[in-house]
Amino acid sequence: MLSPSMAISRLAPCLRPAWRATTQLKFHPKQTSVNVIRSYASSTSAPVFNWEDPLLSSSLLTEDELAISDAAEKYCQDQLLPRVLQAYRDETYDPTILHEMGTLGLLGANLTGYGCAGVSTVAAGLITRAVERVDSGYRSGMSVQSSLVMGGIYEFGTAEQKDKFLPGMAKGKILGAFGLTEPNHGSDPGSLETTARAHPTKKGYLLLSGSKTWITNSPIADVLLVWARLRETGKIRGFLVERSVCPPGTLATPPIKNKNGLRASITGMIQLDDCPVPEANMFPDVEGLRGPFSCLNSARYGIALGTMGALEDCIARARTYALERRQFRDNPLARYQLVQKKLADAATDAAYGTLAAIQVGRLKDAGQATPEMISMIKRQNCDRALVNARVLQEIFGGNAVSDEYGIGRHVANLFVTQTYEGQSDIHSLILGRAITGIQAFV
Amino acid sequence: MLSPSMAISRLAPCLRPAWRATTQLKFHPKQTSVNVIRSYASSTSAPVFNWEDPLLSSSLLTEDELAISDAAEKYCQDQLLPRVLQAYRDETYDPTILHEMGTLGLLGANLTGYGCAGVSTVAAGLITRAVERVDSGYRSGMSVQSSLVMGGIYEFGTAEQKDKFLPGMAKGKILGAFGLTEPNHGSDPGSLETTARAHPTKKGYLLLSGSKTWITNSPIADVLLVWARLRETGKIRGFLVERSVCPPGTLATPPIKNKNGLRASITGMIQLDDCPVPEANMFPDVEGLRGPFSCLNSARYGIALGTMGALEDCIARARTYALERRQFRDNPLARYQLVQKKLADAATDAAYGTLAAIQVGRLKDAGQATPEMISMIKRQNCDRALVNARVLQEIFGGNAVSDEYGIGRHVANLFVTQTYEGQSDIHSLILGRAITGIQAFV
Amino acid sequence: MLSPSMAISRLAPCLRPAWRATTQLKFHPKQTSVNVIRSYASSTSAPVFNWEDPLLSSSLLTEDELAISDAAEKYCQDQLLPRVLQAYRDETYDPTILHEMGTLGLLGANLTGYGCAGVSTVAAGLITRAVERVDSGYRSGMSVQSSLVMGGIYEFGTAEQKDKFLPGMAKGKILGAFGLTEPNHGSDPGSLETTARAHPTKKGYLLLSGSKTWITNSPIADVLLVWARLRETGKIRGFLVERSVCPPGTLATPPIKNKNGLRASITGMIQLDDCPVPEANMFPDVEGLRGPFSCLNSARYGIALGTMGALEDCIARARTYALERRQFRDNPLARYQLVQKKLADAATDAAYGTLAAIQVGRLKDAGQATPEMISMIKRQNCDRALVNARVLQEIFGGNAVSDEYGIGRHVANLFVTQTYEGQSDIHSLILGRAITGIQAFV
Amino acid sequence: MLSPSMAISRLAPCLRPAWRATTQLKFHPKQTSVNVIRSYASSTSAPVFNWEDPLLSSSLLTEDELAISDAAEKYCQDQLLPRVLQAYRDETYDPTILHEMGTLGLLGANLTGYGCAGVSTVAAGLITRAVERVDSGYRSGMSVQSSLVMGGIYEFGTAEQKDKFLPGMAKGKILGAFGLTEPNHGSDPGSLETTARAHPTKKGYLLLSGSKTWITNSPIADVLLVWARLRETGKIRGFLVERSVCPPGTLATPPIKNKNGLRASITGMIQLDDCPVPEANMFPDVEGLRGPFSCLNSARYGIALGTMGALEDCIARARTYALERRQFRDNPLARYQLVQKKLADAATDAAYGTLAAIQVGRLKDAGQATPEMISMIKRQNCDRALVNARVLQEIFGGNAVSDEYGIGRHVANLFVTQTYEGQSDIHSLILGRAITGIQAFV
Repeated sequence: MLSPSMAISRLAPCLRPAWRATTQLKFHPKQTSVNVIRSYASSTSAPVFNWEDPLLSSSLLTEDELAISDAAEKYCQDQLLPRVLQAYRDETYDPTILHEMGTLGLLGANLTGYGCAGVSTVAAGLITRAVERVDSGYRSGMSVQSSLVMGGIYEFGTAEQKDKFLPGMAKGKILGAFGLTEPNHGSDPGSLETTARAHPTKKGYLLLSGSKTWITNSPIADVLLVWARLRETGKIRGFLVERSVCPPGTLATPPIKNKNGLRASITGMIQLDDCPVPEANMFPDVEGLRGPFSCLNSARYGIALGTMGALEDCIARARTYALERRQFRDNPLARYQLVQKKLADAATDAAYGTLAAIQVGRLKDAGQATPEMISMIKRQNCDRALVNARVLQEIFGGNAVSDEYGIGRHVANLFVTQTYEGQSDIHSLILGRAITGIQAFV
Repeated sequence: MLSPSMAISRLAPCLRPAWRATTQLKFHPKQTSVNVIRSYASSTSAPVFNWEDPLLSSSLLTEDELAISDAAEKYCQDQLLPRVLQAYRDETYDPTILHEMGTLGLLGANLTGYGCAGVSTVAAGLITRAVERVDSGYRSGMSVQSSLVMGGIYEFGTAEQKDKFLPGMAKGKILGAFGLTEPNHGSDPGSLETTARAHPTKKGYLLLSGSKTWITNSPIADVLLVWARLRETGKIRGFLVERSVCPPGTLATPPIKNKNGLRASITGMIQLDDCPVPEANMFPDVEGLRGPFSCLNSARYGIALGTMGALEDCIARARTYALERRQFRDNPLARYQLVQKKLADAATDAAYGTLAAIQVGRLKDAGQATPEMISMIKRQNCDRALVNARVLQEIFGGNAVSDEYGIGRHVANLFVTQTYEGQSDIHSLILGRAITGIQAFV
Repeated sequence: MLSPSMAISRLAPCLRPAWRATTQLKFHPKQTSVNVIRSYASSTSAPVFNWEDPLLSSSLLTEDELAISDAAEKYCQDQLLPRVLQAYRDETYDPTILHEMGTLGLLGANLTGYGCAGVSTVAAGLITRAVERVDSGYRSGMSVQSSLVMGGIYEFGTAEQKDKFLPGMAKGKILGAFGLTEPNHGSDPGSLETTARAHPTKKGYLLLSGSKTWITNSPIADVLLVWARLRETGKIRGFLVERSVCPPGTLATPPIKNKNGLRASITGMIQLDDCPVPEANMFPDVEGLRGPFSCLNSARYGIALGTMGALEDCIARARTYALERRQFRDNPLARYQLVQKKLADAATDAAYGTLAAIQVGRLKDAGQATPEMISMIKRQNCDRALVNARVLQEIFGGNAVSDEYGIGRHVANLFVTQTYEGQSDIHSLILGRAITGIQAFV
Repeated sequence: MLSPSMAISRLAPCLRPAWRATTQLKFHPKQTSVNVIRSYASSTSAPVFNWEDPLLSSSLLTEDELAISDAAEKYCQDQLLPRVLQAYRDETYDPTILHEMGTLGLLGANLTGYGCAGVSTVAAGLITRAVERVDSGYRSGMSVQSSLVMGGIYEFGTAEQKDKFLPGMAKGKILGAFGLTEPNHGSDPGSLETTARAHPTKKGYLLLSGSKTWITNSPIADVLLVWARLRETGKIRGFLVERSVCPPGTLATPPIKNKNGLRASITGMIQLDDCPVPEANMFPDVEGLRGPFSCLNSARYGIALGTMGALEDCIARARTYALERRQFRDNPLARYQLVQKKLADAATDAAYGTLAAIQVGRLKDAGQATPEMISMIKRQNCDRALVNARVLQEIFGGNAVSDEYGIGRHVANLFVTQTYEGQSDIHSLILGRAITGIQAFV
């Protein structure tokens, strides 16, 4: 088994050149279970309740996963946290963050090869949790890169596409965006209108036209994975649009500003006007919604565990505030029943949501996860993170309006996580269909 | 003193000539009931449900109140709505808004004399509703001027103080701020630390020292009603601090920026450092918390009806969006049960909250309202406005994150209304004490 | 027709002599507003919060309405309350209750003539509130008699039908039941299957066949208002089925036992097997769902105000328990924040729901109420009564399981009120349709 | 490893005499993990969502646990389900149920030796889930026997006490009750008033006096584990009161009837009037609340997993009803969005609650569970089971009032589970204390 330090080195290959040699034999990617509990059992002292991990979900993690989580948390707290307040205020996103993440091996971490770390689904989720503990916007930027684009290329791309894009994306040198949602088609991507038609003159090329909106990273992306309807078949296909080779006037990616959430991420449109794309940049086999849905499934998993990080940060902030702030006879707010109940509720939902996400991660690696499971944990964890964050925000009283306490930012962000990658009601209906066998979308 | 008819004419000057003829004889100041219902009863056609006023609360309003409401709504929609998006983005507040409101007679409207309109409590509440339909921040700016400062001077001031400040304040030429909350004392103002001590050398003067925070309008205020503990008695007293005469270095009102709500209002601190205030600027009789609580009571009433305006605007915006936005087989979102339920819940709470506020307004004018009633409607209407606004925001899906749909702004604002002027939990405990006879604050 | 004063005197016979002298001149039938507030205003003492009527809804009632309410409350507390525990345990209903109510003038109280009291809609609602303060089952039995059957005959019956049934029903000597719901058609009565066909041999007679279920009072009813589809037109029509003249084997009304709510009312089926009914017992003009819906509308109004009585009783019981029960250092439960919040929430909803119901009652008498308003208050008041009753039940801890505390009975009853006469979701969709103009039932 | 059939035989030793021989070597009591997932991973077909186990919690169970669960479910569905409707109606409890359970090895199943099965905590929890799937009352009867009394004797009893009681209790031949709660001390057992004083004349005997209430099984119990304050030390101690040797007039256990929940269990008081108990029947070492709290902890664990069974049964019943019941254009209710959402919410909470309970069971066997973890899952699972059961009940519309649909019984039962063994608010405060380090009970 890897020592923790080695696990960290896995994540930061540049810092540990010998990594490949030392870990090749011992590392078991997607290792799904280590009975950490048993080793705890040998301790002689009575167990102590840990409010930061109330149901000891860490006992379900391998040592590698714990090490990866620690490394990611350290980076996020040390490097991301100090920037987020200003970035959110200014509504800016620093693309070097993706470079940093790439350097540390955090991008596409659960993919194998191409410079990716090859860690378990849960480990990758722990990375999203670490990032989202700081900010959901930062996590969104990473999710798009890792799950939606790298994951899509990894699963559906040709060998050439993988070789061309994945190594640079893993390093954060090539930035990606994922173009599915259109202005008129949010919850119902099956109706998308962007088209790809054969180039009338240039053989081996297609022309893409259409609009995508609410596309994280689009203004800074080098490669845009665009889902369009192939005119000759009417089927949805995936295309890798490389910005650097698009003729002027065929691709625009204007940013969308003045968002009231996820302001530390960058969001934009993708406007394609007869943009020529070589056939070699089309995903070879996947047709219909299976392609984008598979990518979304992976990203949604990251959201499910990621939002638990945001919620845990809200709990920690609210707890600290409640212990420090004193009202009425010099009692800390934490002394009051109404305050304690808010903390208890939130801690419970964080603990439950974490366990559920770990379980689905294990099932995913075992090939046993279904999309409905992802719908369940994405919906529930986003919803509960949001609800509890809002309630915890009440503890701050009037001070909640100051952005320096951070919780208002989480609240605003978490609302967006509830609406994207499947608004909660849509996931309710996905679950309802799975339970009853009857669809109720229309 | 203005005659009531003049009060109305001030509120809607363009309608004045016609109005005078028709209403001069009939107007009864603070008339609490007009049987509008009866006149409806004579109509022959079947009544029709009006989603904008589901339980026909308008039937409880006098003709004057309806006219005042219409005039205020017109001003707000025509003059305030176009400015709010940019103001909220830039976190700026244009003080000319208070001048405009003053010109229209909207400030201190339920006070009598001093250029005030002398309308009923309900009528004044309808004005706050009109303003808050646009933005809670704009309403906050007005509430501070009208209820907290003008109301305080009106109720507790000397004749000289009234004569000096009220006419200019009614016109919006003198701007006020209300300094009660301190950095360490939010929910528990009884522990406030700001002091007033006799000036060691200048007879007839007191020196005020201390800090106030989260003070709406403080950076732009000409007169600051500051509550401080008189050192010689230990009792809380009210002082009218005039900025223009404060020696340099004795008064500072730095703005607090980067708020995550109420960004279209201006908020700041009040820092007093041995600021000399003449004894003539102290409220003569009122001691203890009775003074500030009375002012707050009046402002809270305005919040209770005001937030119903914000909620109604959320309903209107969500309804429009749901009717226009189509997903799945070209159905408008309004076609879906989960969407309809959100609208039905919100409309119900808006209708109920409006009726309750009107009832308490009537009781207030009749001298029958108790502070607990105000606590009840302030708490419930803020809470329900917030909860429903959040749920309605879900209808917008991903588009909710764009500030152009307005609903995110209401959501952020309404959270603040829930925390200020008595956080909801504090009001719960006020009600609990009233119901059980036992206090549970500590 | 009774004079209004006689109506009142019938409701409170013991108070009659004094009453006549003081009120004879002033009483206005269906008077919709009395400015009780104004008289309060002249009182010199400060107003006091009354937890039993937090927003002073009594100020909206006429003196007559207050007297009616007092009389009804007295009867219910004195005569009904002592019986309900055993009746609920044994699942029995004593039909003499309807006789008693008839004697007091409580049945069909808002109808005019035929021995009915001719009081306002609100006054009739106050009677249902008084009854439901004791038990929703008792109120159900009365509602069926008053609103569904008497109200139906009054609105749609021929002069002969009115003369024949209403006087006896008003006295509680003829008992009625209302047969609309069928085993396969609950929320969708438009699909009802009971038929009425011309008698093949007996001229002037129709034969009714079909099944009705969940029919309050059916096992004890003398006259059953049955809604059936007239075979020759396919339209739904109303029929007054008189048990005493039904040939053996053509009518059965078996009770449904083992209910888990409303156990102090009697419920059964109506089974019609070619039951002959004279054409003279058919309502003359009304066709389709307009007939039953109109009756339901009236009953639903009674439920809206009635359930507030049940909720108020829950509040009173929980408050008493919380003041008497001591836990932890001899503190009464009422000392704890979590308990106070439950009481505050419940009191707020009771106050709001009462105001809304009074408002709709006034509009109803003025001809300005729409069915959607009734949907709104029926849904909201049942929902909130239920939710709060459940929360208040928690205050009783383990003792809640004992039926002697009464609150468990209210909880079980209120759930049923939420499902009958339009399950809450159905009313949500009725409101949704009214708000959006689009139906979402299917 | 045990084959499944052997696991079953473990539970039914009388049916499999050779059990002891065959399993002694292979059985690993409290085996905490088997990577069932890995074996799933080799399956070639795509995984399918299973609404009865949405997050595949079964993958976390050992084969033995699955076999035990299957055996228990079979017994409960075959033997308990057919009896429960009538038992609940009649408010009777058949003590032969405990005999049957004993015969099958379901009692004290997680204890080792004394004829107990020695299974894991999770396995014991799966048994409670199976029983509570039928009825919480049946599960309560079993929990008292297994967790509270047998568990208490096992943990705190002398060797003689264990030998005397445990074998007979494991077989269900000796029935137990647990006397902690007193009429005046529910949530605060530390104030209990029952006393044990030295017998004035009979050496080696103590006299117990006091009252206990809401004691499951007390009227039928052979041995009552009574917690009383030893007069000479003032410390709480545990006593095993044997009914058969109590002199007349010293012990009474009157049943408490007319409960509105858990009617299929039997509940009563324990009244002790100088009841002589030999010192040998006192637990030797444990003093204070540590004793009863330890027993409660174990029982609460069973409740946490048990209530998931009740919730799952509600889901199954509501789903079936929704698929079979048709309203509006012959659509099954399951076709409607508002219905699907209720099912999706409930299934999510059941899945999450099950995972959390399994996790805590594993930690418990590893010696890593803390009482606060038990508080968390007991509170959350009871609360969510109750909330969802109530919402699912709405799907049944008017039919919900019939006890034959079963869901009303679950709703009534689950409310009681929320109040006993720590009312939810108490557990909130336990969690709040653990999170903040500050107690807020008083």
